[in-house]
Amino acid sequence: MIPVAEARQRLFDLVAPLGSETVPLAEAAGRVLAGDVAATRDQPPFAASSMDGYAVKRAEVERDAMFRVVGESAAGHGFSGRVGPGETVRIFTGAPVPDGADFVVIQEEVARRGEVITLTGDDYRNANIRPRGADFRSGTALPGGRRLAPGDIALLASMNIGTVPVTRRPVLALLATGDELVMPGDTPGPDQIVASNSFGLKAMIEDLGASARMLPIARDTENSLRTAFDLAGDADLLVTIGGASVGDHDLVGRVAVDLGMEQAFYKVAMRPGKPLMAGRLRGTAMIGLPGNPVSAMVCGHVFLAPMIRLMLGLGADLPPLRQARLAAPLGQNGPREHYMRALIEGDAVRAFDNQDSSLLTVLSQANALLIRPPGDAPRDAGETVDYLPI
Amino acid sequence: MIPVAEARQRLFDLVAPLGSETVPLAEAAGRVLAGDVAATRDQPPFAASSMDGYAVKRAEVERDAMFRVVGESAAGHGFSGRVGPGETVRIFTGAPVPDGADFVVIQEEVARRGEVITLTGDDYRNANIRPRGADFRSGTALPGGRRLAPGDIALLASMNIGTVPVTRRPVLALLATGDELVMPGDTPGPDQIVASNSFGLKAMIEDLGASARMLPIARDTENSLRTAFDLAGDADLLVTIGGASVGDHDLVGRVAVDLGMEQAFYKVAMRPGKPLMAGRLRGTAMIGLPGNPVSAMVCGHVFLAPMIRLMLGLGADLPPLRQARLAAPLGQNGPREHYMRALIEGDAVRAFDNQDSSLLTVLSQANALLIRPPGDAPRDAGETVDYLPI
Repeated sequence: MIPVAEARQRLFDLVAPLGSETVPLAEAAGRVLAGDVAATRDQPPFAASSMDGYAVKRAEVERDAMFRVVGESAAGHGFSGRVGPGETVRIFTGAPVPDGADFVVIQEEVARRGEVITLTGDDYRNANIRPRGADFRSGTALPGGRRLAPGDIALLASMNIGTVPVTRRPVLALLATGDELVMPGDTPGPDQIVASNSFGLKAMIEDLGASARMLPIARDTENSLRTAFDLAGDADLLVTIGGASVGDHDLVGRVAVDLGMEQAFYKVAMRPGKPLMAGRLRGTAMIGLPGNPVSAMVCGHVFLAPMIRLMLGLGADLPPLRQARLAAPLGQNGPREHYMRALIEGDAVRAFDNQDSSLLTVLSQANALLIRPPGDAPRDAGETVDYLPI
Repeated sequence: MIPVAEARQRLFDLVAPLGSETVPLAEAAGRVLAGDVAATRDQPPFAASSMDGYAVKRAEVERDAMFRVVGESAAGHGFSGRVGPGETVRIFTGAPVPDGADFVVIQEEVARRGEVITLTGDDYRNANIRPRGADFRSGTALPGGRRLAPGDIALLASMNIGTVPVTRRPVLALLATGDELVMPGDTPGPDQIVASNSFGLKAMIEDLGASARMLPIARDTENSLRTAFDLAGDADLLVTIGGASVGDHDLVGRVAVDLGMEQAFYKVAMRPGKPLMAGRLRGTAMIGLPGNPVSAMVCGHVFLAPMIRLMLGLGADLPPLRQARLAAPLGQNGPREHYMRALIEGDAVRAFDNQDSSLLTVLSQANALLIRPPGDAPRDAGETVDYLPI
């Protein structure tokens, strides 16, 4: 058996960051920025008022000072003249501060009578002006290799970036195998069950920002598997589900090797999900997940998600684990790293009692995988443990 | 000024949970389940082997016992006969346990010679059988009112749910207003800036599971605003950005009232983002956000996101705030609830030094809004504070 981290490292050797494509800004949210993108202008592009008020010369500001209103500067329409001594320009939030002025008196501290204003306030420390380039200068870059959050999209817009270079979405082909499987909505025979792994994994893959192409279920025959492998086509990663252990009916590895795969077969020291197959078939990276429903989903979180992040250009660093206090004690862990379905409530985490790897009901109730290292000693309630949000 | 919670309550009065629609399971991830959905079958639908091995009668299991292999039960193809005394059936993981058998000996603890096996193990406590219905029974329901995570999708598949009732996606119309705005990629005039709020809000809205329809930028004229309001059409919520304060050029409220809106105008005790307009126009709920870039995004998180969750059927409960230790001290807070752009690193949170509400660069670097209650006393490093992940 090999540790989880070593298995992950070997899987990383099968994939590489993908190339980039250009998308309109309105479609860039959630995508990964493929390179540094620099502003083409200063923001604000001019000294701008941060309040509604009157633009004047700072040197003339004092209580009871009077100014003659000579014009107006509104957002989008500046004042084209110059503010002279004793003069002021009516100004609105976001509008350019006119030449000759370097101070904005807020309108609440002004008495206006016709075209004359009188200052009525006592506190004139704040000029209420945002200097040109206060947010960013032309050439300031948003660094690549990040997933674009709503705040990044707003920033890119403000930088006047109309189209954005993003990493191409990885295309994953999902191949569920087994004579026992039917599609949801079909009528299963007496010995059959409904395919669930491919649907759960598709949701996970798309949530990570990749595309999932679901192939028809392959039957437990060499012909059916060969046809399915052909359908995987030019996917970036082929994910087979089931049929990858050592049982007499587990044909997937055998057929893949017949088709030329350099196969690697790992027994990973983890629960659930021990057996894992990986390799490269006709140039396409391939990973074989266990057919057991919960094992497939946990291996998706532990192995597939990091591979997708690597392809997206987010690097091989894993998202940092989170910590929570144990709501209930846990016994000694065995020799395998255990990913326990668990519930985070407040700052406490509780592992479900029944961790049988066939129970999707327990997975559906869980919002975290509590991680126990191999051989971890018994833990008391209140001790801190690591978890992965799911 | 009214508190944030009261403003949110008034906004909730403008919207209601939307109706439902039916989508294929493969498109249901991330959607909100519109009602309880019950399994149409037991899972597993039969007692199933959890290992590769041999099915026998438990009463006959002991070291050195011998059995004659009379058939095979594979996943999808059960054994149609009955296991008699001294008999066994070769069985694979997931396959139905044949009649007459109630125990599976794992293959690693069996010596096989022709059609006869001999038990070689010492520990026979575990029957290696998953009882029928161990995961769920026919009629077991996944409760509605939840956002469907990948694990839920796997569970629904396994329940044989081919199509899923989900809440209709709220449609939000986004209306940016102001003569100073141009679209990203356009060439701004000397007094203009690039519209960023509508792009950032669109990303946020879509991330929450709603649809955002971006309307053309409205100019600061009554005609332009009337046209824009017409374009909002049958949206579930119209979001105007900018033009909602009390400046001479802030026409939005005036035109909306002319068109029949029952207007409410709030000064909310929060930073950033004090002014907020809300009402109902021709039957459509409307909210007016401040035009200041960071204020618009913060109000999106604080007001728009809860309204969307309510429309999606997720209720009026806010997602629980998270807690982290302060990495650096904070001074006395003023009379308004302060949403500070901040960075979570490990279990510590640090507010950015410059909280000027025009700085999108600071918003883009932030991954949290640190929340300070009105009048909050100075805080030392190491004290625990609330935050909202963004």
